[in-house]
Amino acid sequence: MKYGVIGINGRMGQEIYELFKEKGHQLVFSYDKDGEYKEDKPEVLIDFSLPEVLETTLEYAREMQVPTIFGTTGYSDQQLAKIEDLSKQIPVVQAYNFSIGIQMLLKTTEFLKDNLPEDWDIEISETHHRFKKDRPSGTAITIADVFDREIHTTSKRLGNVAGDHSIEFGSLGEVLSVNHRALSRRTFAEGVLKSAKFIIQQKTGLYSFQDILFQE
Amino acid sequence: MKYGVIGINGRMGQEIYELFKEKGHQLVFSYDKDGEYKEDKPEVLIDFSLPEVLETTLEYAREMQVPTIFGTTGYSDQQLAKIEDLSKQIPVVQAYNFSIGIQMLLKTTEFLKDNLPEDWDIEISETHHRFKKDRPSGTAITIADVFDREIHTTSKRLGNVAGDHSIEFGSLGEVLSVNHRALSRRTFAEGVLKSAKFIIQQKTGLYSFQDILFQE
Amino acid sequence: MKYGVIGINGRMGQEIYELFKEKGHQLVFSYDKDGEYKEDKPEVLIDFSLPEVLETTLEYAREMQVPTIFGTTGYSDQQLAKIEDLSKQIPVVQAYNFSIGIQMLLKTTEFLKDNLPEDWDIEISETHHRFKKDRPSGTAITIADVFDREIHTTSKRLGNVAGDHSIEFGSLGEVLSVNHRALSRRTFAEGVLKSAKFIIQQKTGLYSFQDILFQE
Amino acid sequence: MKYGVIGINGRMGQEIYELFKEKGHQLVFSYDKDGEYKEDKPEVLIDFSLPEVLETTLEYAREMQVPTIFGTTGYSDQQLAKIEDLSKQIPVVQAYNFSIGIQMLLKTTEFLKDNLPEDWDIEISETHHRFKKDRPSGTAITIADVFDREIHTTSKRLGNVAGDHSIEFGSLGEVLSVNHRALSRRTFAEGVLKSAKFIIQQKTGLYSFQDILFQE
Repeated sequence: MKYGVIGINGRMGQEIYELFKEKGHQLVFSYDKDGEYKEDKPEVLIDFSLPEVLETTLEYAREMQVPTIFGTTGYSDQQLAKIEDLSKQIPVVQAYNFSIGIQMLLKTTEFLKDNLPEDWDIEISETHHRFKKDRPSGTAITIADVFDREIHTTSKRLGNVAGDHSIEFGSLGEVLSVNHRALSRRTFAEGVLKSAKFIIQQKTGLYSFQDILFQE
Repeated sequence: MKYGVIGINGRMGQEIYELFKEKGHQLVFSYDKDGEYKEDKPEVLIDFSLPEVLETTLEYAREMQVPTIFGTTGYSDQQLAKIEDLSKQIPVVQAYNFSIGIQMLLKTTEFLKDNLPEDWDIEISETHHRFKKDRPSGTAITIADVFDREIHTTSKRLGNVAGDHSIEFGSLGEVLSVNHRALSRRTFAEGVLKSAKFIIQQKTGLYSFQDILFQE
Repeated sequence: MKYGVIGINGRMGQEIYELFKEKGHQLVFSYDKDGEYKEDKPEVLIDFSLPEVLETTLEYAREMQVPTIFGTTGYSDQQLAKIEDLSKQIPVVQAYNFSIGIQMLLKTTEFLKDNLPEDWDIEISETHHRFKKDRPSGTAITIADVFDREIHTTSKRLGNVAGDHSIEFGSLGEVLSVNHRALSRRTFAEGVLKSAKFIIQQKTGLYSFQDILFQE
Repeated sequence: MKYGVIGINGRMGQEIYELFKEKGHQLVFSYDKDGEYKEDKPEVLIDFSLPEVLETTLEYAREMQVPTIFGTTGYSDQQLAKIEDLSKQIPVVQAYNFSIGIQMLLKTTEFLKDNLPEDWDIEISETHHRFKKDRPSGTAITIADVFDREIHTTSKRLGNVAGDHSIEFGSLGEVLSVNHRALSRRTFAEGVLKSAKFIIQQKTGLYSFQDILFQE
């Protein structure tokens, strides 16, 4: 597969590059603050950069008319609306987290929300490496979105932690929690590769990583 | 409600006594190694003792013909068969854990077993107070029973911990876990009270605590 | 010992009452929003109430001239200064946490602060029952005070959790953490009893619980 | 630095190779089950292999007369005695864990052992990747060795976990624990590099990683 990466010099950009190379895929386009590199037209475009880069990525996607994966976190509602607009022209994946485990945590959260008594307290928490700029993490926001009300969320920044997420439910007698821990960024790169293989076969439309996992 | 307790002087016996008294129920029968106390015929019999007391409890249950709740852990398969036999004559609840959270942990475990890739490793672990004699706990055994294969299980005994249980699933990229922590034994006594109210209205049959939670 | 409690109807007030009764001590004075109860002059006064009650407690302590233990959390610097003033007249204990384990966590934190490389990140976190009004907890503040700089601190409120505290140190390669979990409020009541026995033998002065643990 | 590795194809062998290359050091000798590679005489020999390879490593070390680092786990007492013998001829480092955090956990364990009441329960636990063959881990054994009595230890094997260790102390009222989590094997490789730089400047003698950390 010929692919392009917006944000190639970031942590996730590098992780994607390593894994895709290992699997025989070819980087033919990249963009970062140092400039553009273009060797060929990519079959898929992957954005792991910053929210302020969105306009640039939208332009590239429209110009090249290639399926695009948005993995950047911290987008505003307005920006998310623009990504949805794009998906009417080309196939788009937008997700805050590309791990299987997180998708299972989300499904489990939905089940517990429906089955636990309503008076239980809920707490969401996440820990990430010191380089992560947004807080709470996009994934923590996705977990909170399962609920119709606001859920108290705490964030820690610690060393080089790849990403921990936790949801806790507590009554006067007991605490039940579901916890996820990414062992390395590679697990996310694998989810991106899975998404890339899926999206290059679609026509148009907006897909989440959960759609990809459960549709395949 | 008039009730009786086998193992009244144990930790759970005392916890049940406190809660039932608070809720206006009346202890009319008890049995412990110090002997028998009988004031009246109970409407329900509750056993939180030791496996070696089973024969005595079976005798009492048959003699009085009252619904019986077995909360003791560590029974052998043969002993469990005897309890099942009893349930053909009178209504019986047999469960290793009387908390809502543990039932949710079990349901979640079933979901994850069905949806995670089969090559993920699984570990079950439990921690209880230093006075707990059996290991692994009955609840840990119930969690392991969700699977068709043997699951590695570890047990810790620490101070006065009311009861922690955890199941972890791990791949090369991530770890997902579900954890339960009982904050006090009172949470179990509440499950026993719920079970007592349920069982005195049944004819015959063998019920788990899960049956009671999801049938009510 | 004849003792008095300010805040007798609170969670800690009740816990202290239960333990002290069990150990043969006699409640002869109490104060709560419902009013005052006085049977005799106490040998020691114990305050587990709210910061706004401080003036009342100071008045009682001065009037009766009895050793006083302040276990209330959420005091302002100005209020702490008033407690220090009082200690020039009578013996005073002021502490945010009356458990041995927390004192060990504090000592350990000091050791790690002195021995870990300075570029490690630090996070403090605490979880308490839904009824706790101040955040972060007084104990979390005490842990943070070990450092010369501000430490990021997160707070959760969950069911009936008696009190969890954690300090984490993280580098690019590893995370080291020290965690404390109170199994019940009784452990704090035991620390208060230890403090009461100590303080009734002192002349004047301001003592922390750490002083009591390591001086005895 | 010119260095050699016994067990070059193992997980730690590869990690060491990557880091040392990045830092400008040169692999001039290696040995693995596929055979020997020799380009030049190394200044230091590093063994991360299996206990059954010890005799081969001892031979190489004696023949080349170079400082040697033993990071392999699972050695018997008899094998450890042979390593000590070797250290009378050449400088030797033998350690089960090359992370700063673990050394701090050990120091903290010693402090808590000396200062907590003797009737507290103690539990040690560790989790490692599914490929780790020995259990409990060498590090867990080192933690247990702090005590004069046997400490109950539990081991889990889960996905690709780089290495978690925990020691818990519990009384009837509270639980205090110290936890370490390696974020990647690179943290150990960094400890090995630190040790290599240290040992090439020594004459003879047996050093632990703790010696190196606190002597430097």
